Formats: sequence, C-alpha cells, structure tokens
Amino acid sequence: MLGVVSVKLILGVSGSPRKNANTDYLLEHALSAAAETQGIKTKTVYLRDYEIAPCNSCFACCTEAAKNGGQRACLCFQDGMEEVYPLLKECSALIVAAPVYFGSLNSQTKAFMDRTEGLLRYGKSIYSNALRNKVLGGVVVGGNRNAGQEFTLQQIHYFGMVHDMIVVGSGSEPTPGCYLGGCGTTYPQKGQIRDAVRQDQLALKNTAMLGRRVAEMLMLMQ
Amino acid sequence: MLGVVSVKLILGVSGSPRKNANTDYLLEHALSAAAETQGIKTKTVYLRDYEIAPCNSCFACCTEAAKNGGQRACLCFQDGMEEVYPLLKECSALIVAAPVYFGSLNSQTKAFMDRTEGLLRYGKSIYSNALRNKVLGGVVVGGNRNAGQEFTLQQIHYFGMVHDMIVVGSGSEPTPGCYLGGCGTTYPQKGQIRDAVRQDQLALKNTAMLGRRVAEMLMLMQ
Amino acid sequence: MLGVVSVKLILGVSGSPRKNANTDYLLEHALSAAAETQGIKTKTVYLRDYEIAPCNSCFACCTEAAKNGGQRACLCFQDGMEEVYPLLKECSALIVAAPVYFGSLNSQTKAFMDRTEGLLRYGKSIYSNALRNKVLGGVVVGGNRNAGQEFTLQQIHYFGMVHDMIVVGSGSEPTPGCYLGGCGTTYPQKGQIRDAVRQDQLALKNTAMLGRRVAEMLMLMQ
Amino acid sequence: MLGVVSVKLILGVSGSPRKNANTDYLLEHALSAAAETQGIKTKTVYLRDYEIAPCNSCFACCTEAAKNGGQRACLCFQDGMEEVYPLLKECSALIVAAPVYFGSLNSQTKAFMDRTEGLLRYGKSIYSNALRNKVLGGVVVGGNRNAGQEFTLQQIHYFGMVHDMIVVGSGSEPTPGCYLGGCGTTYPQKGQIRDAVRQDQLALKNTAMLGRRVAEMLMLMQ
Repeated sequence: MLGVVSVKLILGVSGSPRKNANTDYLLEHALSAAAETQGIKTKTVYLRDYEIAPCNSCFACCTEAAKNGGQRACLCFQDGMEEVYPLLKECSALIVAAPVYFGSLNSQTKAFMDRTEGLLRYGKSIYSNALRNKVLGGVVVGGNRNAGQEFTLQQIHYFGMVHDMIVVGSGSEPTPGCYLGGCGTTYPQKGQIRDAVRQDQLALKNTAMLGRRVAEMLMLMQ
Repeated sequence: MLGVVSVKLILGVSGSPRKNANTDYLLEHALSAAAETQGIKTKTVYLRDYEIAPCNSCFACCTEAAKNGGQRACLCFQDGMEEVYPLLKECSALIVAAPVYFGSLNSQTKAFMDRTEGLLRYGKSIYSNALRNKVLGGVVVGGNRNAGQEFTLQQIHYFGMVHDMIVVGSGSEPTPGCYLGGCGTTYPQKGQIRDAVRQDQLALKNTAMLGRRVAEMLMLMQ
Repeated sequence: MLGVVSVKLILGVSGSPRKNANTDYLLEHALSAAAETQGIKTKTVYLRDYEIAPCNSCFACCTEAAKNGGQRACLCFQDGMEEVYPLLKECSALIVAAPVYFGSLNSQTKAFMDRTEGLLRYGKSIYSNALRNKVLGGVVVGGNRNAGQEFTLQQIHYFGMVHDMIVVGSGSEPTPGCYLGGCGTTYPQKGQIRDAVRQDQLALKNTAMLGRRVAEMLMLMQ
Repeated sequence: MLGVVSVKLILGVSGSPRKNANTDYLLEHALSAAAETQGIKTKTVYLRDYEIAPCNSCFACCTEAAKNGGQRACLCFQDGMEEVYPLLKECSALIVAAPVYFGSLNSQTKAFMDRTEGLLRYGKSIYSNALRNKVLGGVVVGGNRNAGQEFTLQQIHYFGMVHDMIVVGSGSEPTPGCYLGGCGTTYPQKGQIRDAVRQDQLALKNTAMLGRRVAEMLMLMQ
C-alpha cells in the first residue's frame, strides 16, 4: 500500500552481568545511532535479567518431532530463553554486546548463543531458520587496549555465520579504531571502572558507526 | 525500462601459484554454482598471471592529490594490478580463493589484498570506496584437514570488513562441513596432490554453497 | 637427592555436558598418551560434576585484601570451583577439552575459565599466578569437519596467554590433521553421535600427539 | 665445563618495508629488553634488504632427495633466503615483527614465512626441523587501535605452531595492553606516522615485556 513503510526491529542483547556499566552503555549508544535511521525501532534484552541454563547438547530441538504445535525452540529447558526466542524471531537485526573475559565472550553471553541451536536450519519448531538473513553486528568491551576485543567480535561473527546471518562491521568512516564492530576498552580506567568506557572516544565513535551500519544494511535490503 | 534486468558480475580471484590445481578447481566450482542464478555472470583473475609488487606502504594512494585525473588506484607501482583494479570496480561481488600456507593466506594472495589500499575510504582516485557494499565470499584449500582453513577464511573476511563489504558464509544447508565459506583439503592426498580436492566431497558441497550464497546475497540487495 | 624424580601432574579438564561421550574420550586419549612419558601422572576433572557459577566480574579476587589467610581464589562464590582451584595450583600442565558450539567454546567450559580470574597476576590469595609457566594444550570436538575447531583451540590458547602459560600444539609428526592441538569431528556421524569421534582416526592421532607434546614440554623444562 | 655458559641467539625479523620506522623501532625495543638477560645475544634481519620470492608450493624441499649434500633448505629459488636460513637454524628464539595490513601480516612478512617450508618436519636437508622447540614471540603495529593486531599475532603464533615452536605472549606484568605479544598502534598519528609508535607508551611496555618473556622462556629451558 502506497506510503506504508514497515518498521524494522533491531534487537540489542547485552551479556554483561553489571547493570548500567560499560557494555550496556555502548549497546545503548549503538542502538541510539541506529535509531537515527527512519523506520528503525530498537529493543534491548539484558541477559542478566533472565535465568538461562547452558545448552546440554541433547539436540532434541533438532531431532524430535514438533511438540506443542512446534511452538518451542528448546524442548529441554523452560527458562528465560522462552521470552527471548520470540524477540529473536521478530527482529530484523541483532546487535550482541558483551564484555571480553580471557580474550573471548564471557560465558553468560555464550550461554545465550548456545541456546539458539533450535533456531538453526535443523530446528523442528516455528523457530527454524529464525535468524537467517538477518543482520548481525557486535559490540565488545575489554579491560586492556588489545585484550581480545577483535577475537571476541570474530566469535560473535562466527555465531552469525552459523545462523546464516549477514554480518557487518563498523562501516566506512575513516580511522574507526576497529573495523569489526564496536570496540571499547576500560583502560586506563580513570575513575570508576564501571563507567570507564564513557571516556573512550574511539569506542563511542566505532560503536555509533556499528549501529548506523546495521541500520544501513537493513535499508540496503529493502 | 520494463523487463530489463541488469546483469551482475561476480569476480573470482585465485591466489594459487599452480595452474588448474585445487584452488582453481574449487573457485571454478563456486563460480559455476553462483552462475546458476539468473542475472549473474562471472569472471576469473589468476594472480599468477600478473606481476604484483608488494605494497610498500607509501600511502600515496591515500594522501596525494589525484593525478592523471584520478584514474590510478596506486601511484607507486604500475604493474599487473592496473588490469585488476577496473574489474574490482566493475564487479558486484568478489570471491577470493587461496591455498593455506602456515595456517593463513599465501603471500601472493595477501600481496593482491595489500595493493587495494587505494580502494579504501581514503583513496584519492576514482577507486575510492570501490569495494564498499559489495558481497565477499572466501574459498580455501589446506594440506591438512584442519590446517588453518578457518583462520584463512577469517583473514579473507577481515579484508572485507576493512573494505566495508558484505561478508557471507556458506549458507543454510545442513552439515556444510564449514560455515565460513568454501573449505577444502588435499588430505589424505590420494593420487596427485594437485587434484586431491576433486575427491573432497565436503569441499565440493560447501564451495558450491558459498557460490550460491554470494549470488543469493546479491539478489537480496536488488 | 640422587635418583629421585619428581612426578608431574597433568590435569585434564573436560567441559562436555555428556558423560563418556566424544570430548571425554579424546581427553582420556590425550592423557593416556601423555602418561606414557615417565614421571607423568594425570587426573581428570569433569566440569559437569560441579556447580560453577558464571563470573560476575566483581573483581573482589583482584582488589580485596586477602581474607581467610588468602586461601580463597574467589571471594564471590563458594561452589564447585573450590575443589578445582587446588588442582589448578598443583598441576604442572593443563589440557582443556571441550565441544565446539557455534564455532567456539561451549559456555560451560568458558564459565570455568572465567572463574580463574583470581589465579591471574592480580590475584590477592595464595592462587596468584597459579597457572604461570605451566604448560597448556587443547582438545576440541566439532559437529562439522571445519566447524570452529581451530578457532576454539585459539580461544583456549588465548586463555593460556592471559595466564602466561606455555602453550603447545600437537607436535612434530607429519600430517597431524591439525597443528594447534587435538581436533576431532563427529562428522559424518556414523552410528551414535556420542561415540562418533572414536572412528575419527585423524583426531585420535593428533590428540595423542597433543598429549605427548604436553609431556615432552614438561621434560624440556626440567 | 664448569663456569661456561652458552650464549643464546634471539633472531629478530622485521617485515616492514620502511627503514627505521615503527616496526623496526619496536623490534629493536623488544630485542634490547631481551638482551638485559645474561647469556642472550641478538641479531636483526630486515626482510626489505633481501630478495625473497614467494613460495610456489613445488614441495621440492619436502620430497626431493637431498642435493648438494642436503645444504639447501629450498631447492626452487636461490635468493635472499639463503642468507636467512642459517640464522634460523642457529638461533634459539625468533621474534617476528610486522606491520598489520588489512588485519593481518603484510605480504612481505608472509612471503618469508612461506619460504620456511623446508624447515618443517618434512624437510630433506640439514634444515629439517630447524625451528622445532625454539621460542617464538610476535610484535606488530597497526594503523588503528584495534586494527587486526591480535589477529596478526595469532597468525604469527600459527606459523610457530606449524613449526612446533614454543609460543609465548607478553608475560606476567599487570595491564600489558596486550597479552599476545608486542602490540603497537600509530593512531592517532601525532606528527610523522613513521615515528608514531614511539609515543605509544603501552606498546613500548608490552613490547619490552615480550622481549623479556622470550629471554625468560629460554632460561626456563636451560
């Protein structure tokens, strides 16, 4: 119908155990930048607010015949992920934001990812292929300047590749600080470490770029 | 004009020093699979057929005012890349195929990549941003089963991220063998090692998937 | 004292949620190969047998003055890790074995790693620098042939680098299948997937090599 | 003989095309720090001073019977590498320093690595296994803060794993900036970009740490 533009949802997922600290802040920054594009709405999920059991690799989601009318992405656990799955299905793009622990994703963020097995091509529910062809961007924060941020962004991208998503980096502005996505550091941790990234101008720049790039990619696919 | 469909070019670049051997074969396989999609044409560049000097990081391409009407992507060398640059500008997608040496790209393929500095956002010629928003896929071959193929695909993807390309993996069919792209091995090297990958059924599968995925992505962006 | 040789402990840690399945099997295989070297004893920890809370990044381990005589590596949680910490301190080498989920470590194995923050250089207990200069090797299993095994081994190695460990690969025999460590796949999953890796001759080879390499490295440092 | 201490050579290899610029400077910094340890001497090879052809994967080094008394590591090319091979055989440790181009090693540094095929386990000359059990560290410089430095260090480490070397990171001091090795950036490029890294205090710190760590590892193995 003439003049009707569908609004697309970018879902932000924060994997930080700390409320309102660096990761949350950068994710909000990315989503705000994305929302400058007309036709974009955003929503944020804070993983710490949900009980999410680690996947135990039972593969019921991929092998058992659909139960309950195929409404459940995971047949093993009934936990917080049941609230997250519909958002993953609804969204057009996903921005995963996480702190870097020991050079890679903290276990909480990875637990969330591992529980999306039923959203793969093998899934036997309505969630099969739920993330396919959706746009993915990553935002990370590390305690040192080069503390595994890039490796962690590549880890997020790997997740996207398995889901057959469209993985984007931070876009085309000069000297982004990082090409792979939003990339912050709390070093040298002036003041409260929880807030340190707010003084990381380079992170603020490439994180906003990442948000805009995700939105731009959605527009390229209209 | 009604009924006119533009034809999109997928450029294949082979970095193998060996003619008609494993890397060439897989690249041809990827391009053939891509060409099954209507509206796709393909072309292949074999880097071994060109003299390509390593970039010496003079940055003339990014800092000097446009010369010769801004027609030259590289102001330092006049070599085989002058024939390749126009193809990089013309194409809608790029598939880089390379052998894995010591866990990553062989130097010949990297020399080609390094010489695309002038195609970045900083470029001062008509080639500025020449690869931006184009689709990128990778195809690799290694001498062991897990010999750095994935690392090399990530290296190709990194190149794409710097160019602000749209990086795709091997798509959504089950058990692709590799999610990141075309991924072959010459192990266990039955018969001639130059031809070994032709017996690697898994590589043939995920390489064809990669080709189709690149074409699919182009269609998603129409 | 003449003739007295100290026995060195290699600790194996399995992160699989499945008992006696592929990861456990390969880890046992690595440890058996290591134990062929005189002066080596081994012990295995199965993470699934312990309650291990994800690190919530409180940094108490690194900032609070030693409590209880500095006996506790983690001041935040009292859980299964309290049984594991002494083994990490006692061992001379560590072999981490894990299944690959979405291209990287499953969250259970990462949760274990994240909880070793107090063993770093910043630790305020007797566990400070507990892993420094110890040998580290990795063993992984993935559901596709090139499913992130190498990326996961690099993730394990990153953990070791942060702890200032001595990271080794699979050693010097020809065509190991993987140079980075033990590397198995359940593909093409003949028979029970839980047992599939037992038919992966290449994995059995490089996993045994990894075990012997860890032992060899310990001997090089005597 | 009582009192005689063997002197061990750490060989530095710089892959930068620019003389006396950032990469050279950091490499010198690493070697100086290493040389503070008694019993260490250092030597530097600047790859730009040698003609080094890319490996064309003929595998003559690994398959042909030894010629000329097995004195030649490479049977295909007679170029600058003939001066480098003996140094690789003589040294006890190797520090590879390189600029980051497009997220990974510049092609010049990779060309050097690719030409060490004959030093592998398969080599048919006196250079077979020439790097095995030698210590390896990496030093890199990138144009953005998170521009692929870590990926490039992992690429250097991968090379070491294939050679069965003992790969070390930057050691145990707090907040090294990077755990994987020496890691500099020319960002934000105050003054001459060729000299920018001299103002990167964090790079100077972790590069010196890397040098000391290489020396320390040699001592641990005495």
